[in-house]
This record gives sequence, C-alpha cells and structure tokens, in this order.
Amino acid sequence: MNNPSQPRPAYISHALLLDLLALQLPTLIQMASEDKIISWLCRLTVITAFFFIGFIIGEQLLHYLSSCADVSLIFGVTGWFARPTTVNHGHASKSFLHDFLDEMQAENIKHHLRKLTRLPHLAGSQQNLDLAKQIRAEWMEFGLDSVELVPYDVLLSYPNKTNPNYISIVDHLGNEIFNTSLAEPVPEGYEDVTDIVPPYSAFSAKGQPEDELVYVNYGRTEDFFKLERELGINCSGKIIIARYGKIFRGNKVKNAMLVGAKGIVLFSDPADYCADGVEPYPNGWNLPGGGAQRGNVLNLNGAGDPLTPGYPAKEYTYRSSLEDAVGLPKIPVHPIGYHDAVHLLQHMGGPLPPDNWKGALNISYRIGPGFMDGLNQNKVRMNIHTNNQVTRIYNVIGWIRGAVEPDRYVILGGHRDAWVFGGIDPVSGAAVVHESVRAAGKLMKKGWRPRRTLIFASWDAEEFGLLGSTEWAEDHARVLQERAVAYINADSAIEGMYTLRVDCTPSLHTLVYDITKKVSSPEEGEEGMTLYQSWHKRDNSTERDAPWISKLGSGSDFEAYFIRLGIASGRARYTKNRKTERYSSYPVYHSVYETYEIVERFYDPSFRRLEAVARVRGGLIFSLADSPVLPLDCVEYAMSLTKYANSIYQLALKHPAAMEQYSVSFDSLFSAVENFTVAARDFHQRLDQLDTSNALAVRMVNDQLMYLERAFTDPLGLPGRPFYR
Amino acid sequence: MNNPSQPRPAYISHALLLDLLALQLPTLIQMASEDKIISWLCRLTVITAFFFIGFIIGEQLLHYLSSCADVSLIFGVTGWFARPTTVNHGHASKSFLHDFLDEMQAENIKHHLRKLTRLPHLAGSQQNLDLAKQIRAEWMEFGLDSVELVPYDVLLSYPNKTNPNYISIVDHLGNEIFNTSLAEPVPEGYEDVTDIVPPYSAFSAKGQPEDELVYVNYGRTEDFFKLERELGINCSGKIIIARYGKIFRGNKVKNAMLVGAKGIVLFSDPADYCADGVEPYPNGWNLPGGGAQRGNVLNLNGAGDPLTPGYPAKEYTYRSSLEDAVGLPKIPVHPIGYHDAVHLLQHMGGPLPPDNWKGALNISYRIGPGFMDGLNQNKVRMNIHTNNQVTRIYNVIGWIRGAVEPDRYVILGGHRDAWVFGGIDPVSGAAVVHESVRAAGKLMKKGWRPRRTLIFASWDAEEFGLLGSTEWAEDHARVLQERAVAYINADSAIEGMYTLRVDCTPSLHTLVYDITKKVSSPEEGEEGMTLYQSWHKRDNSTERDAPWISKLGSGSDFEAYFIRLGIASGRARYTKNRKTERYSSYPVYHSVYETYEIVERFYDPSFRRLEAVARVRGGLIFSLADSPVLPLDCVEYAMSLTKYANSIYQLALKHPAAMEQYSVSFDSLFSAVENFTVAARDFHQRLDQLDTSNALAVRMVNDQLMYLERAFTDPLGLPGRPFYR
Repeated sequence: MNNPSQPRPAYISHALLLDLLALQLPTLIQMASEDKIISWLCRLTVITAFFFIGFIIGEQLLHYLSSCADVSLIFGVTGWFARPTTVNHGHASKSFLHDFLDEMQAENIKHHLRKLTRLPHLAGSQQNLDLAKQIRAEWMEFGLDSVELVPYDVLLSYPNKTNPNYISIVDHLGNEIFNTSLAEPVPEGYEDVTDIVPPYSAFSAKGQPEDELVYVNYGRTEDFFKLERELGINCSGKIIIARYGKIFRGNKVKNAMLVGAKGIVLFSDPADYCADGVEPYPNGWNLPGGGAQRGNVLNLNGAGDPLTPGYPAKEYTYRSSLEDAVGLPKIPVHPIGYHDAVHLLQHMGGPLPPDNWKGALNISYRIGPGFMDGLNQNKVRMNIHTNNQVTRIYNVIGWIRGAVEPDRYVILGGHRDAWVFGGIDPVSGAAVVHESVRAAGKLMKKGWRPRRTLIFASWDAEEFGLLGSTEWAEDHARVLQERAVAYINADSAIEGMYTLRVDCTPSLHTLVYDITKKVSSPEEGEEGMTLYQSWHKRDNSTERDAPWISKLGSGSDFEAYFIRLGIASGRARYTKNRKTERYSSYPVYHSVYETYEIVERFYDPSFRRLEAVARVRGGLIFSLADSPVLPLDCVEYAMSLTKYANSIYQLALKHPAAMEQYSVSFDSLFSAVENFTVAARDFHQRLDQLDTSNALAVRMVNDQLMYLERAFTDPLGLPGRPFYR
Repeated sequence: MNNPSQPRPAYISHALLLDLLALQLPTLIQMASEDKIISWLCRLTVITAFFFIGFIIGEQLLHYLSSCADVSLIFGVTGWFARPTTVNHGHASKSFLHDFLDEMQAENIKHHLRKLTRLPHLAGSQQNLDLAKQIRAEWMEFGLDSVELVPYDVLLSYPNKTNPNYISIVDHLGNEIFNTSLAEPVPEGYEDVTDIVPPYSAFSAKGQPEDELVYVNYGRTEDFFKLERELGINCSGKIIIARYGKIFRGNKVKNAMLVGAKGIVLFSDPADYCADGVEPYPNGWNLPGGGAQRGNVLNLNGAGDPLTPGYPAKEYTYRSSLEDAVGLPKIPVHPIGYHDAVHLLQHMGGPLPPDNWKGALNISYRIGPGFMDGLNQNKVRMNIHTNNQVTRIYNVIGWIRGAVEPDRYVILGGHRDAWVFGGIDPVSGAAVVHESVRAAGKLMKKGWRPRRTLIFASWDAEEFGLLGSTEWAEDHARVLQERAVAYINADSAIEGMYTLRVDCTPSLHTLVYDITKKVSSPEEGEEGMTLYQSWHKRDNSTERDAPWISKLGSGSDFEAYFIRLGIASGRARYTKNRKTERYSSYPVYHSVYETYEIVERFYDPSFRRLEAVARVRGGLIFSLADSPVLPLDCVEYAMSLTKYANSIYQLALKHPAAMEQYSVSFDSLFSAVENFTVAARDFHQRLDQLDTSNALAVRMVNDQLMYLERAFTDPLGLPGRPFYR
C-alpha cells in the first residue's frame, strides 16, 4: 500500500530516457541548475517493467508456442520457401544482395549529384516541384511499381523580395552607418542563376528592433547563465548576437526569448566553421567570410507543420491561427557571415569576454551593452521582413510491393529540398537514394522482388522543420505503426572525408556491422580492406572492439518515424574525424557554397565515399526487406539499455542530497533492464531454433521484432512535448 | 494554397464523432448553447479520408497481393488446416461451437450466482480478495492454462467507520431536528452479515457544509440553465439536491461544482426507480423507500486510477498528489432514499417547480432557497467523512493459449467487485463468465484448443471508476494494441425481463446476429424459437428488419479497451422494454437489495435468460477466437458511418447561420465515408475468394480486420480528454 502524500520513485518513459541521453549528459549537467536536474532524475528513476512487458509477454507466448505440441504439427510443410522464383532462403537472398550492392556505382552517383544540383530547389518553389516530377519520372523508368507526388499545404517562410533583410549600425542621428550584406557572393559558374534565396532565418518574426548589442557566445542556457549571473549583464530588451554551433539554432532563439531579448543575430565564427589549413571555397572547403548559414528557427519538437500539429496538412485540415501555431519565434532573427559580424561586434561595451568565448574572431572588444568608447552612441537595428505563408509542398513516394509480405514496409527516405543548390545537404543523400532506386529496379528486371514492400521517399520542406516527412507520417500514422519494419534516413551522405558515421537504434547494430563487412573501403590505399575494417581502424568504440555507433538524436526526417511512431530507424553517412575536427557539421553548411563542385573537388573526387554510403544504406533496406527473419537484434538493445541505465545512475550519484530528498531509487530500473536482458537472450536462443519453413511461426517472431521498438514509445509523450513519444 | 487567417473546415477525429453520437443528440442539442454546439460542429465537419487510409491502403495491398502471380504460388499446401487435431476448417469449428454453447447451462449459472453473492465483496476488501482466490482456484480446476492474480494499488474511497455520513435538517438554534438514515434496512436472511458498506458517494470530498437547499431536478446542464436563467434561482453557495437518472452521477456533481454549489445530495425518485404495479423488494423488485444508490462521483474520462493517469498503478509508479488527481469532486456528495428525500424536500422555499420536475414524490413544495413558511428557518447540513486511500486491488486473469495464433487475443472481461452482494451488478455477469470458463475447460478436455489465445478477466474496482480493467489495459497497452482481436464485456447480464440488448462496434453486428440465431429463446411459450427471433419480435431496428443494436457508450470495463485502445468491443445482456419501461437501469441498482434472491424470484427464475446471455457472450468469444478468418464485418461498419454522418449533418442543418459563419462543409466527410464504403465492399468481395489454405494470406486479411477498429483512434484524444481516443 502506498501513501499518496509521500514523494515516491517516479515513473518515466523510456523515450524520455533516450531523449535525455541524447542530450549529451556532461553539457546537460552544466546547463541546468541542480534542482532542475534532480526534478528530471526524479521523473526518471524508474523504467518500469511494463515498458518491457510487450517483449516479455511475447516471450511467454513464444514459449507457449514452442512448448505446445500442436504447433509443431501445424506445418507438415517444407516447401514454403521453395516456391518457383526460389528467392528467399534462410537469409536475404545473398546473391541478390551482392548484385544489389555491386549495382550501385560511384559514376552514377556522380551523375545524379550533378543533375540534381544545377538549380536552386527551395521547398515550395517551382524548381523543387519540377525536380519532384523529374524524380518521379526517373523512378518509374527505373522500374518501381508506382510513384506518386503527395502534396501538403504547410506553413513556410520566405524573405520579402522587395524589402530585403539586413542588420545596420545606426548612429545617434539615426543614420545607418553600416549595413550587413544582402546576399552571399555567388560562386563561379553560378553567376547567372536566379532565385538564390539570400541568407535568412526561416520563420523569423518581422520587425525592426533597435538597441544595444550583447554577445552571448553560443546562446546556450549556460552561456546566458554566465552572462547574467556572473558578469551581471542583463539581456532583457537588448539585441543579442550569438555564434552558430553546439546547439540547434532554434534553441538559441528560444533562449533569447526567455531572457527577454528583442532580437537575435546569428553568425558563423571561423572557430566553428573553418578547418585549420584549409582555404575558403572555391580554393578549399572552408566557409568564406561572406557566407552565412540559412536555417529555420522553429521549436517544433516534432510537431511538423506548425498549423496542423498531429494531423496531415491536407486541404481540408483545420489550421490553427498563426498566434496558436507551434514553435514560431516571437522575435526577429537573422544570420550573417563573419565578415559582417566583425563590424557589429566592434560596437559593444561592457566587460571583456571570458577566454573561451572569444572564438576565431577574437572577440576581445567587449561583450555587453554600452557605448564603446564613450563617444560612440551607435546602436544596432535589425530590418526583418520575412513572411510566413501556407505553401504547397510535394513528397515523391515510390513503392515496390513485397512478394510475400506486402503488408510489411521498409522505408528509405531523405529530403530533396535545399536552401540553394544542396550540393551536400541534401543532394549527396538524394543522389544515393536515386542510385538505390535504380539498382533495385535493375534487380527487378532480373526477376527479383523483395519479400516485404519497399518504400522510397523524396521528402520536401525538411529545411523548414521536417515538414514533408512528418506530414506523411501523420497522414499514414496508423498503417505505419502496424506495418513499418524500419526507416532508414537518407539526408546528406557526406559531411567529412574521414570515415563512416552511423546513428541507429540498438537493434540495428548487428546488421550495420554485417553490411559494412560486405562493402569495400572507399579510401585510397585500402584496396582489399572492407568498409568495416576501415571504419573500425578510424573510429573504434570506447566500450568494445567494434566501430563506434551513436544513438539517434533528432534533426532530420527520421524524427516522426522513430521518435513519434517508434519505428526502428537508422542513418549512415561519411563524416569528419570527430576527435580532432571541431567545427560544427561542415563549414559551408546551408550556404550558397554547397555546390556540386565542392563534393567533386574536395569531399569525394572519386565518388567512392558516396558509393560506400549508398551500399550501406542500400544494404540495410535490402536486408530488412528481404530476410525471412528480420535482422533485428534484441540482445544489442538490452546491452544498450544497460549502458543507458548506468549512465543515468552515474549522473544521479553526483547529487546525493537530492537523491535522498526525493527518495530516488534505481532498483526498479535495473530490475526492468535485467528482465528485459534475460527475455532478449532467451528470445534469440529460440530464434536460432526457429523452423523457418513455418510461415506463421516466422511471421509471429517477426511481429515481435518489428514491434519491439514501438514498445518504447508512450502515446502521452514527454511532458509538454506530445510528439516525442 | 490556403490562407491560414480564414476560418476553414475543421479536422476531427472519428472517435469524437462517435463520442458525440453516443451522447444522444437530442439531449445534447438542448443542453448546450448554440455557440457551443456549433463550435463542436465546426471541429466535426470533416472526417478526413486519412481515417480510412489504413483500410484503403490495406486494400491496395490486398489488391497487389491478389494480382501478384508469385503469391498464389506461395502455398502449394492444402494441408494447413488438416492438422492432426482437425479443429479448424473454413469457419470456427462448428461442432465445437455447438458443444460449447450447449455446455453452458442455467443450473450451473444459478449455482455460480448463489455461491458468488453470499457475502459482500467490495473492492479492496478481504472478502473480495478471498473471492478472487476462489475464482482463480476454480478457473484452474476448470482447465485454463494459467490463472493469475494481478494487483494494483489504486485510489479507493470508503466511509469513515466511526464517523458516519448523513444529512441533517438543522433548526435556527443549530439542533439537528432530522437526520437521514445511516444504513438501508437489511433484507431478510442477511441480518447477520457484517461489512455491508452504507450508501455513500465514493470519492466525495469531506465536509460539513450547511445552507439552504435547492432542488435541481436531474442536475443536467439544461436543468441548471432553466433554474438559473428562467426561474432566477442562484445555486452558488447553496446545497443542492438532485434526483438520480438521465446522466451519470459524476456529471451531476461536476455541474453542481460549476454553478458553485457547496454540496450535493442525490436521491432516488420512485418515478425513476420504481416500475408501475410492482412491489418494493422483497415482495417485488422495486426499490424500497429506505434503499439508496451507492456509486462513485468521479469525472475520470477514462483515466483509470486518479493518481496514475495513463500508467498502471504499480508499487513503483509515480503518483500525483491528491490535489492533482484526476476527477475528484471538490464538494461533499451523498445519496439518500426517497423516504429521507421527502423530509429534506419539505424544507425549501422559492418558486414552484416546473411540472416535469415533480417526479413521483410530487415535489410541489417549492424548489429554491428560502424559509418555507416564514417561521421555518431550518437549514440543511451535510456530514461527510469519507476517506480516500490507496488500496490494493486484484484482477483475476486466466489464459487459454491459442493453438495456431497464440499472439492474437480475444478477451472476455467483467468485474467482480460489488457495492454489497452484487446479485445483479456484477455477479449476474460474473456467473456467466464463470460458466463460460467452465465450458471452455470442458471442451479442452475433449481435445479442443482455440486457434487464438483466450483471456478471461475478473476485474476489480469497476465501481470505483473502471480501475481494475483500466490499470490492466495501461499495463499491457502496447501488446493489446498489437494483438487484441476483440474485447467482450461481461458486466450485469440482466437488468430486465424483456429481451436481449446488445451494444457493440458495427463490425460485430453480423456475428451477433449469427450467434443469436444459434441460441434458443429463453422465454416461456417460445419453445422452438431462436433468441434472434424472440429479440427481433420485441425490439426491431427502426432502420432495417433486424433486431436493434446500439452503439457502445461508456460506463463499464470495455472503456479502456474500446475507447482508448481501439479494440473491437461489444456487450450483451437481458434488458427491460426500452420503449415502455422508463426507470433508469433497474430499481434496486447499487442498493443492498441486489441479492441472489431478486434474480431467482423475479428476474430469471429459470435462469434461462442468463443462460441465453452466457451463450451470446460465449458464442462471440468462441467465434472470434476460433474462426480462421475473423468474423468482423467492414461493410456494416461503413453502413454505420454513413448513418452517423447523416445524423451529424441533420443536426448541423438546424443551425444554418452558424454553418455559414464558420464555413462548415460536409463534403470531405461524406466523401471519406463513401471511399471507405467502396473499400469495405471490395475487401469483402475479395475475402469471399480468399484461399483459406494460405496461412499467410489469411493472417494478412485478419490483420486488416483486427486493425480496422484501431484506425478510428487518435493518439491525441479528444480536447481535454486524452484517454478518449
């Protein structure tokens, strides 16, 4: 019996746990006050057994099944898979997998990348619709069973074409004595291209606030904390300037609103966006001083279209007013390059910045409000005229129906819309999807058809908040929850030149390792080496002797599929050396300098890295769609849960007083993880003895495997974030 | 393109639509102001096609399936169902169904009812735990594969044993000059029984408010509306008295709080709780003047345990404080019989009541606050000392594992806890479940085992807000959503002596008709007639030539399964003549007079009515568990949707101005219903041609059928009611 008036160990969702872990614990602990951390921990301490009960009950049933004499007699049948086309045996048909991987070729990817990056293709633009039609036509030609354009009407945001956005320094007479650039210098060869959208912060509020400027480093919680509590600088009513990096730009804006700022300017500091010893584009792959990072500044938390949270933005869908829209910032926001940033930064007063705030611009001027030299009474004015408007977007959805289980779906999806040319983001990924579709079509012409249904998606409006992928997920939520086996994301396929990077759900670890052992290393001098070996050599896990795989975070189109719907998901790309290369994403990220040429000249001249990524992504969907028994690994899941539980426990141990005050106990958490671990082990043992000629028995274990990931979602979501389930 | 600033046709969930319809439209339209109705309608107008997309996409796939040459070759197998036990053929094994129905016998049900009603068995009491153990032991003996007690720790509410609840009339000196009874007169034969809980309103707030009394008829919205706006009587700060009936008592209390009342007294008016020409118990089955209706007065909206909404009330679950608990009333509430009510009603002043408020007590005194004759300065005082406390409850859960598809569940569940003896509510139902379990066990000894898993549940604490069933649903939500085929509810099996009453999801209509054609009429003089014929004769549908079947409302244990999880559900019981017998539920409802004898002497002396109900409920679960193709009917679903859509449209037409003002259009709704109708028809046509020897093909269509009901749930729930999905 419990007394409801006592504090008691809290119940939490596993999604919460994953979410918390995805936030990089050390940062989190610095950011939040101890109370806040403990209030989280207090909600966190118990992952109750019933998160695992799906699995455990499943186990009981499986046990019934295998102990039930009747059942072994159900099939006197051995011919199940010996059907005329002789495609599926115990494993995904190996020769076809080999053919499929081989079919994807660097030269083709190069060709696709070139073709898909000639013009800008911003979401909602005619060019992007044209591109959608082109992709539809080519996918049909490649041999998919069907390809459709699926429109939604979502809230997008564009600069006002007749009234450009910029930031000014205004003197005491009100004259604009300095204005930031209206556009980036256009790279060579693209001078005649029209419709290049200038750098802007999508969904910025309109406005012309004018005030003193305050520098807030990265605009993280801990930065504001330091500024306001340690340095005594009040940001309320000021315009603030933050450098890009460390956290999502939308969170910088949210933090700025929380401290009461009037507006926020974002700039790219060379410390975060330039690699040492590399020239700015076009002579190297660093960001030029005139380049700036576009991007949306929403706080959607997975809601999709801000006007239709939870529901697809169809023509007839009810839309909330702009006032009630999800995640729109209430203040003007604007991005600038570092050449312009220097001018603004010179016009501040106040104390000197902490050393670790100085960046490459050596912001030693001063960081707070005030008049720099007593004579300078200049202020900063933002001039922002960006408009929100409901706009039609188009996903391209292609299908290959499954031969045996058409009601099981494996999805390969990535976005098509780009801020400008999208040489890296997203077309390095879209070119890879294109090549996967071509290869699958080629195999079909040889008589292959996957056991399960394959869905290929070219999402629209990812850059505006993952809108295309989220609306489609909302449109088909029930069917996807019942039928989707896995979602593999295909955003940018390359962001560095070092090695492979994979983020995925733990149940995919084993398959990822298996596939990478079947792919060759793309690196020069590594002929005869597998991708696995090359990757392993460069990025070994700290926990075991295998390549490093990360948890899935958020920020790309898998979000609605993984975080909301609980579909096993993963992503793979070529990346930088995460131990030595400290710049955020890649230098030219979301600038006009993301061209075909930057990939062809610097990132992947042979296109073998993109080929390797294509084979990993392609190998994953092939195996997931074609293996009779789903290649998902519950034991890996159990190991990861143990690791997460220990991390949280270690974190909690740093707050012994609060642990005691709130009677926080980890017993139930560890007990639940242990139960899950035992069940997972038993499950896989029995899986080894499964009679794969028994179609219904195979379907039942596959259902258990498919629904494992769903068991970790909570329909109520996180507190205040109903779509993070 | 849409302009977000315009009002536009609204998106609504189908659950909302069903919910609205379940509210009895004519009442609703009276109750709410026009604006409120229109704001609902405005949210209502569009059932978008994507509610049906699960089905429609499924259809496309089925089409692929049947058009895909490969698939017809998958099985060269005809021996699938010809396995040694030869149980399942194209339909649920008919001879076993016949045996199963025959096995359930009136005499046994009589015996169970007698045995299970000897002692009170209130939720949370030792007697109810003892009864749970007894049921577990008998179910094991009957032959179930496993039976377990599943405990939860939930918030219950009991009167204070040393400080009884009552209502007084207090004179101007503060003397209690009249007190209501502390208990009901105990029926003959039960004089020595201890632990009969006196009439009380569970979860009432404590308190001793004292003030003038105001009569509010049934305490519905429209009653308060009439009282306050037409008669000018202000209820704020008063104690109000309402008669039971028409709406759930918890809603009367909610309405009382909304008008600012200090407390509310509930009484049973003979007009609502006595049949004409019938004697009070024990000489007849009417409610005696000393009898009163117990019951909880929560507003849970499906949340289950008030302290753990959304999560199972395990030992380690986080519990909210009582202040944050769901649905607890903030004012004292108490129920009385009509003998006591007369005394209180004499002490009011104010205007005369409207004629239709007078009831059988002929409340012609006066209805408002005031001093009746100018000399009388008496007031009313409530003395309420009821305690809330977290208490352990026990569900009994029994399993028969499925022979072929152990991972598909069919559930027969009803509650065990009773306010006192539970002669009708719930034991008339529990005795029927008991007999079903016995019959199933008997068949298993003959070699039968159902194709799917059967789950039998004896829920606890239904009377306290459907707690046992809801907590178990919360505990197993994911597995149930993935695996549950249907839930059949087994609350009271009899509430009248006229004919059958069935409330169920439209997809079960056809099966209900089929089963009732296999059961004999229990009525004397109808030998040789089927239950279907007897029922049809007495209660023909207004819409077609078939017996009347209602929509499922709420108020019993199916709620979490149907409304929250979207599992196809139904209930069946013997009932009164709904056209002529106007009393609410049945006269002795929730009183001490619900004994074994009232059933044996009046409701069902031959026990053949309960036998018939047992065979209907049993036949439903048997067919659902054992038919190779699930006996669910999408075409019936489509017909019902058409009917609902028309009802809403007719309702809307009564408000043309508001329809215009909010640009309400029904086009999308009707178009979606039409699409669904076509898809349903096509599906059933193809179902007729299904090769039932193809195990995987059968499983795939069954999955479509099983998930159909889920497609009508929305994880976001109704506005403000997250568990009504």
